[in-house]
Amino acid sequence: MDNFSFQNPTKLIFGEGQIAKIANEIPKDKKVLVIYGGGSIKRNGVYEQISAALEGHQWSEFSGIEPNPSFHTALKAVEQIKAEGVEYLLAVGGGSVADATKFIAAAACFDGDPWSILSEGARIRAALPLAVVLTLPATGSESNPNGVMTNYETQEKLAFYGRQLFPKFAVLDPTLTYSLPAKQVANGIVDAYVHTVEQYLTYPVGADLQDRFAEGILRTLVDNGPKALSEPKNYTVRANVMLSATMALNGLIGSGVPQDWATHFIGHELTALHGLDHGQTLAVILPAVMAEKREQKHEKLLQYAKEVWNISSGTESDRIDRAIDETRAFFESLGIATRLSDYGVTEQDIPAMIAALSEHKMTALGEHGDITPEVSAAILKRCL
Amino acid sequence: MDNFSFQNPTKLIFGEGQIAKIANEIPKDKKVLVIYGGGSIKRNGVYEQISAALEGHQWSEFSGIEPNPSFHTALKAVEQIKAEGVEYLLAVGGGSVADATKFIAAAACFDGDPWSILSEGARIRAALPLAVVLTLPATGSESNPNGVMTNYETQEKLAFYGRQLFPKFAVLDPTLTYSLPAKQVANGIVDAYVHTVEQYLTYPVGADLQDRFAEGILRTLVDNGPKALSEPKNYTVRANVMLSATMALNGLIGSGVPQDWATHFIGHELTALHGLDHGQTLAVILPAVMAEKREQKHEKLLQYAKEVWNISSGTESDRIDRAIDETRAFFESLGIATRLSDYGVTEQDIPAMIAALSEHKMTALGEHGDITPEVSAAILKRCL
Repeated sequence: MDNFSFQNPTKLIFGEGQIAKIANEIPKDKKVLVIYGGGSIKRNGVYEQISAALEGHQWSEFSGIEPNPSFHTALKAVEQIKAEGVEYLLAVGGGSVADATKFIAAAACFDGDPWSILSEGARIRAALPLAVVLTLPATGSESNPNGVMTNYETQEKLAFYGRQLFPKFAVLDPTLTYSLPAKQVANGIVDAYVHTVEQYLTYPVGADLQDRFAEGILRTLVDNGPKALSEPKNYTVRANVMLSATMALNGLIGSGVPQDWATHFIGHELTALHGLDHGQTLAVILPAVMAEKREQKHEKLLQYAKEVWNISSGTESDRIDRAIDETRAFFESLGIATRLSDYGVTEQDIPAMIAALSEHKMTALGEHGDITPEVSAAILKRCL
Repeated sequence: MDNFSFQNPTKLIFGEGQIAKIANEIPKDKKVLVIYGGGSIKRNGVYEQISAALEGHQWSEFSGIEPNPSFHTALKAVEQIKAEGVEYLLAVGGGSVADATKFIAAAACFDGDPWSILSEGARIRAALPLAVVLTLPATGSESNPNGVMTNYETQEKLAFYGRQLFPKFAVLDPTLTYSLPAKQVANGIVDAYVHTVEQYLTYPVGADLQDRFAEGILRTLVDNGPKALSEPKNYTVRANVMLSATMALNGLIGSGVPQDWATHFIGHELTALHGLDHGQTLAVILPAVMAEKREQKHEKLLQYAKEVWNISSGTESDRIDRAIDETRAFFESLGIATRLSDYGVTEQDIPAMIAALSEHKMTALGEHGDITPEVSAAILKRCL
């Protein structure tokens, strides 16, 4: 097990009806800005629950956060915050709204041009307190200090981080996810699954507990994922998916272990150049990463086969093949196609994606840093 | 899954050599009091590491915390704190030292007689900041806000809690446990195992993820426990045990699920009246609780048999028998006897223990509150 530091101060407030609890969590004397996306919260009753919970607080709202949240939209929220003297931010939505709210929280307190937070990784020294009411389980942003913003003028999608950006609390009410489109639910499940695999499927370092926890998240998603689609109002199923997505990227399972984020990074180029949903890119690329790196990941692939898919007979090679097949079949069972050809992407499109990876300095991916552009090209070929 | 709130702000700083990190975690301008027990830290080099790490800080020390920490000893530490103007407490030791340090932190800021914190559960409104350097994995106290203190004058052992009592950080260095006596290591493993079982082995509420995490801790302890004794300097083994003990009682696996603390509560009387180690009492009582409550715990016992002990064939009754036998054999494999007769306790001693349970209002234990004194007596009979 590698040395690590782990800390996650976000309070999880989990269960049906828990939005009402925010009244006790946000100090009464703080001016609140409620930040949300396209307005679905006005159709599904969430907005009314928030309004009721904030009764007695002074609050205003900012809407229009995009699915890939825009740097320039965030700046407009910062203007409103300064004009109104806002002191506390409440994100209501999925990972995009949470990410944007974190950036707004930092930008509102930033001395200088907030663009430098993204462009140069300028250090975030202060941020407004923020919290999240989660409506889409997927990214884990509701209990981590990270985010990604897009500058649509320069076509850049850039990550940021600051330990002041942990949400103070996250309300996780599984019933808020009942009305989500099936495709969003499926994409979220794939995202959580792949986050977990990326912190697990590398090489063994004797981190038994982290491995058991990662396998526990994967098994929970396998057991509950398809039911989340076929029984959209099954509370228990939605609860298990929601908690799994949060635990998949709150820092716990990645503590003290090697990580391999190649699937996410290659996937970003597929989204940028061909418009696939983030979850779709992961479902396409992960099985190919497993196949391409089966030598280096041999031991962990066997462990994954046994612990997640209960595959323990047959030759080692056969067991690994079956584990990869099961992974692909799981994604397909959620209605997500796993081949580039399903999305109209062909072999001719690969060089442009490899060029983009190189341009973004993604030339040494994986737990060994040996996923060069050539290897990424081989991975993409396996995705056809 | 039941509704829950979960928050654990303690920073875990894990790995060999991490004591040096405390220099960055404790503000340089704070006067520190290092609190420890009987002085083993002076023999095993830990004291020197602490001294080196606190170079540049103003600090003093308070030693003599007992294995079952004394309320009156804690008051002496409070006097020292007030006399010296101490502002930060650093516990160096196991659960007893951590518990005592939490009580001291609260008592030093308490308006009124600190005894009321224990006797009446008076609310803790403020506490000195505290941190823990853990030398014995067992209780989980290093990352939770709870403690137990003993008043040796009145012969009372009383619990306390305060959300201000979460350690700011906990240093978990597995090498610090190399020199522990085997018996303490074994008791600690049993304590962590039973903490986990008590948050798991009740009835199903569809909390798949919490169940997988609990099973993950149990499997990790089963896989690593005996090796922790036979290979005391196996870093990976000690690391897995240490992290498991912390995760067993940091609030996570108990979130949203029913709990049954009967084993701990009955065990307390066995310690009080017959002087068994805490871990020994748990090893004796848990198998009997499983056997006595096998009807109510039927489904979870079958799940426990399958997921922890890989028992999935045979009649249901047979599988449960085997799971209980495996549990007992695991404790015995750690060198801990699991029968009252092994400790010279006989059937004639049971009534006094039952009277003590009643006196301490432990008359409705278990997840259903149906472990009455009569049922506790039946459990103790099974322990003979």
